[in-house]
Amino acid sequence: MSEETILALTAGEPAGIGPDLCLQLAAEARDAGVVVVASQALLADRAKALGLDVALHPWQPGRVPHKAAGELSVLHVDGCASTQAGELHAGNGRYVVDTLTIAARGCLDGDFDGMVTAPVHKGVINDAGIAFSGHTEFLQELCGVERVVMMLATEELRVALVTTHLPLKDVSDAITPERLTQVATILNADLKTFFGIEQPRILVAGLNPHAGEGGHLGWEEIEIIEPTLEQLRGDGMQLTGPLPADSLFTPHWLNTADAALAMYHDQGLPVLKFQGFGRAVNITLGLPIVRTSVDHGTALDLAGTGRADAGSLHTAIRVGGQMARSLKSADRTSGCHRNTSTKEKPE
Amino acid sequence: MSEETILALTAGEPAGIGPDLCLQLAAEARDAGVVVVASQALLADRAKALGLDVALHPWQPGRVPHKAAGELSVLHVDGCASTQAGELHAGNGRYVVDTLTIAARGCLDGDFDGMVTAPVHKGVINDAGIAFSGHTEFLQELCGVERVVMMLATEELRVALVTTHLPLKDVSDAITPERLTQVATILNADLKTFFGIEQPRILVAGLNPHAGEGGHLGWEEIEIIEPTLEQLRGDGMQLTGPLPADSLFTPHWLNTADAALAMYHDQGLPVLKFQGFGRAVNITLGLPIVRTSVDHGTALDLAGTGRADAGSLHTAIRVGGQMARSLKSADRTSGCHRNTSTKEKPE
Repeated sequence: MSEETILALTAGEPAGIGPDLCLQLAAEARDAGVVVVASQALLADRAKALGLDVALHPWQPGRVPHKAAGELSVLHVDGCASTQAGELHAGNGRYVVDTLTIAARGCLDGDFDGMVTAPVHKGVINDAGIAFSGHTEFLQELCGVERVVMMLATEELRVALVTTHLPLKDVSDAITPERLTQVATILNADLKTFFGIEQPRILVAGLNPHAGEGGHLGWEEIEIIEPTLEQLRGDGMQLTGPLPADSLFTPHWLNTADAALAMYHDQGLPVLKFQGFGRAVNITLGLPIVRTSVDHGTALDLAGTGRADAGSLHTAIRVGGQMARSLKSADRTSGCHRNTSTKEKPE
Repeated sequence: MSEETILALTAGEPAGIGPDLCLQLAAEARDAGVVVVASQALLADRAKALGLDVALHPWQPGRVPHKAAGELSVLHVDGCASTQAGELHAGNGRYVVDTLTIAARGCLDGDFDGMVTAPVHKGVINDAGIAFSGHTEFLQELCGVERVVMMLATEELRVALVTTHLPLKDVSDAITPERLTQVATILNADLKTFFGIEQPRILVAGLNPHAGEGGHLGWEEIEIIEPTLEQLRGDGMQLTGPLPADSLFTPHWLNTADAALAMYHDQGLPVLKFQGFGRAVNITLGLPIVRTSVDHGTALDLAGTGRADAGSLHTAIRVGGQMARSLKSADRTSGCHRNTSTKEKPE
């Protein structure tokens, strides 16, 4: 088994900055083995628009990807209806989903050690008649797991979410003992597996303002969150909370913990993005594969201009590589080789 | 009319750090005229516990407060049942509310130019049979105004809230065109009146993740927030949004604005507290009086130990004084003298 780590990088929405970022990445030599999963014509057209001289090499499973400046390994995906920067095209929805499917299946089959995703445009995919609420949910279904966990991370802060892309009014009903147990269990396990933390220390936010303030501002803490955390502590997890969200994200608490668990999207992510904008990475936990992503959107207005910032993509690739190596190491320890393959010959 | 600005400072929960902070303030000379509204016995007992040598001078309306190191002007309030640090006593609930009433009435009568509040314990007040959900709501009722706005601020960031101390599940129903219009109008007006900003630029968050993402993640943005903002823009307000909360709190947007308007407590305050913990001030807008507060709680475990940090109180007094002077200046310009009094003789 080779020690070489290979990440699939999906280029995302063709009209957005995803293809730009993949090509900007190729302009310099890389440490990591990266294969872009995208339409080769799209990448060629965008390289021309950007004035970048990048040689696109078709990649096949088992080959070591190119890493030199100006060289990029590509796993071509058919069906890109428009390569135009900045202009959405509903005909691209199926193609975009195909890139995700091919990358994820490649991870499950052991051709890749993990996948990194550039931003997609949910509207285009839904307008193409494909129900799609996000990468996270899509990969959950494809991998056939009951629950995944969305976590955003910077060098200094990790924030995982109990609920993700739900209308705010539906959040309270979604906070159940079952979901909270599943999410905390996955977070705890994957902080060990993917980040090498022996005994993760997790801060858990309440659902309501001031964590309900003893029932004065809501009952979910008393009825659901506190008893569930107590049970999980009995199982050996180090969980602190439920804490008021506006206390949790202060040095007093953060300095004592490895990750924060927020109950919903806008309770946890504004702080994370404020703290590490442009340097944050989106990680899906609970999958049998490694998946990281940039923390920004398609930025249609910047596509094709050369002004896209690849900072978050660099972080996503670096963290994805670290997670893949940590997983390989854990697999070796446990004697499990679920994602191994033979990558022997140079491409 | 004297230019001297006098702030009432309520000492808050007797078992908490409020009395400590008032006494720590008195240990040094002050620029601002501050009158502590509290039980004189409580302050005397706490000074003894802290080993602080502070002379407590009874204050009367019309007198200039003491400002020298070791001197403190006090407006005594009867009824403090226990002065014990760290131990809550339900018999103190009525007394605590009385300090707030006296300070607020003093502002309305023109004896004070504004009030600054140390933390109270809502449980103690409610256990005493007095319905109390927070200073903000209490002062709203006392002053007889239909709507107030809670805003937290640091030197760098101002965050106002459309809803405050509501269970999360009730937030969606509370976001109505009427409420949003009232809150934005107050915020806009008071940024002018109290902060001297001629044409305030306000960033408005959506309610749902990604501001609803075109209806995929909730409809409140399309049905309520967008049309309301459009109408308010027609009235001349500079409003940007609804923006995804996790985009709003990034330099790209914050650098263009004077304040952010979040839809609910935990959407806006975790970022504010993260950014400025220990230096943030809580401001009530929409009142006919100036009111600022510390941004922390009663910290029962620190009361009487001398380890309480007065940083936020210093900020609250400084900002309260600035707001009071800005209000006086606006009153003079408009020919209105609602809060003036004659403060001629030294105490």
